[in-house]
Amino acid sequence: MTLLELATKARDVKYTVAALSTEDKNSAIMSVADALEANASDIISANAIDMKNGETKGLSQGLLDRLKLDESRIKGIADGLREIVKLDDPIGQITEEFERPNGLKIKKRLVPIGVVGVIYEARPNVTADVFGLCFKTGNAVILKGGSDALESNKAIVKVIKSALEKGGYPVDAITLIDDTSRETAKEMMRLNGYIDVLIPRGSAGLIKSVVENASIPVIETGSGNCHIYVDHDADIDMAIDIIVNAKTQRIGVCNAAESLVVHEDIAASLLPKLNKALREKGVQIFADAKAKALMEGSEDATEEDFAKEYLDYIISVKTVSSVEEAIEHINKYNTGHSEAIVTNDEKNADKFLEGIDAACVYVNASTRFTDGFEFGFGAEIGISTQKLHARGPMGLLALTSYKYTIFGNGQIRK
Amino acid sequence: MTLLELATKARDVKYTVAALSTEDKNSAIMSVADALEANASDIISANAIDMKNGETKGLSQGLLDRLKLDESRIKGIADGLREIVKLDDPIGQITEEFERPNGLKIKKRLVPIGVVGVIYEARPNVTADVFGLCFKTGNAVILKGGSDALESNKAIVKVIKSALEKGGYPVDAITLIDDTSRETAKEMMRLNGYIDVLIPRGSAGLIKSVVENASIPVIETGSGNCHIYVDHDADIDMAIDIIVNAKTQRIGVCNAAESLVVHEDIAASLLPKLNKALREKGVQIFADAKAKALMEGSEDATEEDFAKEYLDYIISVKTVSSVEEAIEHINKYNTGHSEAIVTNDEKNADKFLEGIDAACVYVNASTRFTDGFEFGFGAEIGISTQKLHARGPMGLLALTSYKYTIFGNGQIRK
Repeated sequence: MTLLELATKARDVKYTVAALSTEDKNSAIMSVADALEANASDIISANAIDMKNGETKGLSQGLLDRLKLDESRIKGIADGLREIVKLDDPIGQITEEFERPNGLKIKKRLVPIGVVGVIYEARPNVTADVFGLCFKTGNAVILKGGSDALESNKAIVKVIKSALEKGGYPVDAITLIDDTSRETAKEMMRLNGYIDVLIPRGSAGLIKSVVENASIPVIETGSGNCHIYVDHDADIDMAIDIIVNAKTQRIGVCNAAESLVVHEDIAASLLPKLNKALREKGVQIFADAKAKALMEGSEDATEEDFAKEYLDYIISVKTVSSVEEAIEHINKYNTGHSEAIVTNDEKNADKFLEGIDAACVYVNASTRFTDGFEFGFGAEIGISTQKLHARGPMGLLALTSYKYTIFGNGQIRK
Repeated sequence: MTLLELATKARDVKYTVAALSTEDKNSAIMSVADALEANASDIISANAIDMKNGETKGLSQGLLDRLKLDESRIKGIADGLREIVKLDDPIGQITEEFERPNGLKIKKRLVPIGVVGVIYEARPNVTADVFGLCFKTGNAVILKGGSDALESNKAIVKVIKSALEKGGYPVDAITLIDDTSRETAKEMMRLNGYIDVLIPRGSAGLIKSVVENASIPVIETGSGNCHIYVDHDADIDMAIDIIVNAKTQRIGVCNAAESLVVHEDIAASLLPKLNKALREKGVQIFADAKAKALMEGSEDATEEDFAKEYLDYIISVKTVSSVEEAIEHINKYNTGHSEAIVTNDEKNADKFLEGIDAACVYVNASTRFTDGFEFGFGAEIGISTQKLHARGPMGLLALTSYKYTIFGNGQIRK
């Protein structure tokens, strides 16, 4: 089938999916979860083809690890779907209600977006996660995964569709585009009237391509050049714990810290001790002159270092003489994701919260908490780094729109 | 100055505008309102040049009327700004607050979007309105008006900037791009990192161009192929009043009705009488076979008629045999703006409210109420016909984003 035929099917089914009751949606998701476990061996066989191709192609160990599926990972995927079932269904909720002087009664009601498009790379678990989140919110979903995971994705979608069919639910609620070419991706980005929103998940390059080429609305996700700022008055041990956690607990994720900003008044008491703690974790340090003098073995930081999302055991360090300078530096280099201040100074904490332009601004905590699960949303479709529609961790609500329903008794406009 | 230099100034001032107190913002808007009235003669002189050029160029009477400024219209613009002063400032409001089991306290706080770009056509009043709405919400604004209104816009922006300067407020809070070429418009649509959202206001052609070319997030506004559906059981007089109002009270606006859908059971009692009422207003009718037989003087409707936003004294008529068929027809042809059912049947009203995919869905009222003022928002930046971020009439809230502020006491991720 051509992309346009697939997209037409998704568009044509969207009102059917939107009209499903919460009970039906939950029961369909449960049966999909069971079917994924029951058909684990088929999925693992398909995944083995992807893994073999990936090894031949020389994919990195990190990518191969993300690609790999086994019994326990499939159980994890199924359990993730079961968690989605437990969440409240936002669809149909009335979020505002007011009456006008002319007697019109206006209600704002949450509705599905319609058709959600997702372009992602080599993580087959995304396929089931995204289906669960979109189906729970009454959206049809059209997926374009990376070529490296094509066989795995096909197997997963086959199981999902067959479970939907068995239960009498609309099978076109999920569509996988099996042409993984870039041309098809670009065509997908311009399907106005078919796809209502496009969410790219993956590398900075993928996201940039979507932002530049899409004519359908996009929710930009992902890249995080996150900073930890240690203020003039801060608990040194807390600062070190937070920095080491934010930098090294998991290096390849968007909420990991990439840059440290330090008030010059605390530099001498913080940096040598921090240097030791980071070295123990194998972290390489690029620092400005003042910080370099206090951190043995560190190298000179360039402007480029301050702008870089390393996603590696590397951190940059910048010293400043005030919280204002820290805010200015961070707002210049950050990507609108997550920023933290470590301080005992309430006034400076307020200034930081007020002045920093990012989805999540922390006082005395690690940036690693920017995550749908950690926020208590139960699940996550991604982390938005743009300001429209949704910002920060996106749960089910980010997959909803609203409409106004207006009740009258014959009102006309004078 | 080049576009990039102008956009850089807007971007550089955004945090200053964002940090202004409600009091400062209101006082600045009041002084702008006063300055516009005090400098009315300068603005009218500049407008006279636009009017003369427009007449030479042969602009339509309708466009010339929208372009024209006089003392009373300038007073209207100033009063509009004073109304914005009276509205609650959403910035800084906490819309959600919750605590996680690990002790993190999370607050969701409304913040400005940053730099709002607006591309519009020959209505100089938009210049001041948009400034007022954006400034009230702590946003910097960068405006690109049409060439037909250039002198008027320059004069208005000059007065605004000079009033801001006098009061010690940031003059770059408003920027007018005085190069009205299409190339510059296209360049503006791709200023990622400078402009945070782009709102096009004007013709369908302008909006289409923005949607197709922009890489920065867009809020699509405008076109409305609005329907009135008269159900099998409806009050005939109410139906006629609503249809005549929605079609003829103001023909050139997006919330005017363009198409009528009628249940076949009520067609014989409704249509001849309605025909007479519409004819009296000079409305031309394109109808399907069943309706045509009941509406003397009407012509055959084509598929194209059902898809057309006439913005004129013309309406199309379609008969259906059920509310379900009406919903399907409307969802096929509507533009997601405003749709109404006239009915005494509560069940069908519910089906219609549930099934119709549009920003505003009415029961027994005219579609003409889709408007920020009519909804009680006090002002309006436009009417969104997309589903992301804002849908329907957009007031101050549509010009806000949010950030999460998170308070901890040393939490790190396990």
